[in-house]
Amino acid sequence: MKVERPHRPGDVTAGLPADRAAAIRLAALRLFAAQGYRATTMADIGAAVGIRGPSLYKHVSGKQVLLAEIMLGTMDTLLAMHAEAVDGVTDVTERLRRAAEAHVRYHARHRLEAFVGNREIGSLDQPDRVLRRRSAYERGFRELIERGVAEGVFTVRSARLASYSILDMGMGVSNWFHDSGEFSVDQLAYQYGDLALRIVGR
Amino acid sequence: MKVERPHRPGDVTAGLPADRAAAIRLAALRLFAAQGYRATTMADIGAAVGIRGPSLYKHVSGKQVLLAEIMLGTMDTLLAMHAEAVDGVTDVTERLRRAAEAHVRYHARHRLEAFVGNREIGSLDQPDRVLRRRSAYERGFRELIERGVAEGVFTVRSARLASYSILDMGMGVSNWFHDSGEFSVDQLAYQYGDLALRIVGR
Repeated sequence: MKVERPHRPGDVTAGLPADRAAAIRLAALRLFAAQGYRATTMADIGAAVGIRGPSLYKHVSGKQVLLAEIMLGTMDTLLAMHAEAVDGVTDVTERLRRAAEAHVRYHARHRLEAFVGNREIGSLDQPDRVLRRRSAYERGFRELIERGVAEGVFTVRSARLASYSILDMGMGVSNWFHDSGEFSVDQLAYQYGDLALRIVGR
Repeated sequence: MKVERPHRPGDVTAGLPADRAAAIRLAALRLFAAQGYRATTMADIGAAVGIRGPSLYKHVSGKQVLLAEIMLGTMDTLLAMHAEAVDGVTDVTERLRRAAEAHVRYHARHRLEAFVGNREIGSLDQPDRVLRRRSAYERGFRELIERGVAEGVFTVRSARLASYSILDMGMGVSNWFHDSGEFSVDQLAYQYGDLALRIVGR
């Protein structure tokens, strides 16, 4: 497997947005990705955005809030992309294809969020809000597969394993994808859409 | 997605082997999984195995060596399992099925190793030995797929994406599998073997 190193600490301050709150969130994301949540201090985050000492706390109440925002933001974006992808499409095959494409697009474009999301779920004091969204997101795929099976167009031994497989292979993209590689995000999305349909025996 | 929290620090000392070196390796693995490599100190590892102060260094030269051993051990085991799975099997479909089964078996049985391996590649001072093994392992799957395509039994748009998909969906198992769940390791391996063949259009 081709595995990229995550962003190195040297990249942390590159191109931060002018908006203070947005800059703090992005710096936190990069630092959590580069060195892990536990090893990152509020002082590291402050240094990355050029805020010294306690004035950082005018903008954000702490590390936990930043981590929770990153992980909730990831799941809310994925849920919204899924809803948009299937909106107005009735054919179950087309719905699954589009949902799989959206899933892969997110993971190709948001590698750091995916990396931190997968690695730091154990660092959240209250993971339930994130886990509930993950369950709902997985259920969206599973119910599509079950509907396709009921309609006689999909054949699977376990709808759950089929949905996990489609989700896991899409999440894997965040580990190896880079913009200068062999595939564009669109090419990747189309090919993974096809693979998702193969997994359900379409 | 169902995502389990990794082992909590409270579990670190449970059932450690009598052999000192083995106990140190297992405690390090659990601590790296529970709190991350950077946040784990040699003193934490010593405390977990009941060795205080510098005498830990009689058994191991440092954290980097422990992390490298975990990650090299994972890849060497996967490469050996792959070789064993395909040994004596000439049919390319059967070779791919067995290789995919072995891949999933490892990831169901070695969840902590897989978790640390995926998350801490950026923490290795010299990742090349691990990355070389990962490339060789991926190449093993890709060459099987290319051979199946050449023989006219597989149909894929990209052998590389097909191999990444099979590997990523198998690695995903380490995030959600647990022994008391819906599937045994064998059931999981058989179903993923089938899914791998679907991915290559068999």
